[in-house]
Amino acid sequence: MTDARHDMRSAPKTWNRSLEEEPLESVVGRLLRGQGKTLATAESCTGGYLGKFLTDLPGSSDFYQGGIISYSNALKIRHLEVSPAALDRWGAVSEPVACQMARGVRNWSGADLGISVTGIAGPSGGSPEKPVGLVYLGLSDSVETRARELLLEGDREAIRLRACRIALDWIRRHLT
Amino acid sequence: MTDARHDMRSAPKTWNRSLEEEPLESVVGRLLRGQGKTLATAESCTGGYLGKFLTDLPGSSDFYQGGIISYSNALKIRHLEVSPAALDRWGAVSEPVACQMARGVRNWSGADLGISVTGIAGPSGGSPEKPVGLVYLGLSDSVETRARELLLEGDREAIRLRACRIALDWIRRHLT
Repeated sequence: MTDARHDMRSAPKTWNRSLEEEPLESVVGRLLRGQGKTLATAESCTGGYLGKFLTDLPGSSDFYQGGIISYSNALKIRHLEVSPAALDRWGAVSEPVACQMARGVRNWSGADLGISVTGIAGPSGGSPEKPVGLVYLGLSDSVETRARELLLEGDREAIRLRACRIALDWIRRHLT
Repeated sequence: MTDARHDMRSAPKTWNRSLEEEPLESVVGRLLRGQGKTLATAESCTGGYLGKFLTDLPGSSDFYQGGIISYSNALKIRHLEVSPAALDRWGAVSEPVACQMARGVRNWSGADLGISVTGIAGPSGGSPEKPVGLVYLGLSDSVETRARELLLEGDREAIRLRACRIALDWIRRHLT
């Protein structure tokens, strides 16, 4: 009984330790580097936070080319090939716009992978249809472009942080 | 004597409290909003950290348009009008390139002000001529474009954080 309890306690501890030892952005970097692939980011609600994570570790220029912080819709249209029709019909926080941003930043940068984040980080700006915490991610490579819808809890910082971590984890799973 | 000591103690306390109450990015936002001006960022070594600060506060889309994370030199040349000759002669971490990045992102975005950061955040990549911690900031408006040289201490995170705070403070002083 004591042994079993000890096992149960030590197992998650080891798991936590190994996660602490290699942050998600480091795993993503290792996978991209190993596959000789490059990445670019298109960020709206996270405003550069995802790029900051990707460049936390030295040597990230091996795989991270950079990206666009498209906080205004004008920049999304002008530089990310987001269509005014999509913005009118679905709004900036939508699956089609997340896809266009991810594809757009891949074309803009020449990177192999494009990842995008667009959402409502709050505290204001929410509506019954699009509440605070609604975030769309887009992921684009040479084969296809997909989007994911997230509904995140917490304050502005927590929503932005979680959006970044889920985006990094999506890239990780896409590469494995 | 007791009264005097009390005064001396309470003065800095008030000063500290007021700084805590209004973060630098909030002061910058208030000044930009009040003057009806917009801002765009061009980040190399900070990788999006400055944009993250500017969008920490809700409503930053009033004054912050977005920007370019130009982690690779290719993106600096292609989208920020940085000249290959300047990169060859002075390197990416230099006053001329900081100026070109700040001017370039202003043109790219249509913002009134462009701010740029390029530096060596370490721990590797330093040299006797260009040590770790060497950072150039550029600031461009319709009248002129200037650069500043910084030599910052600390680890990668501290260098990147300090570069952002000094950039924000430079914008604040430029607007007052």
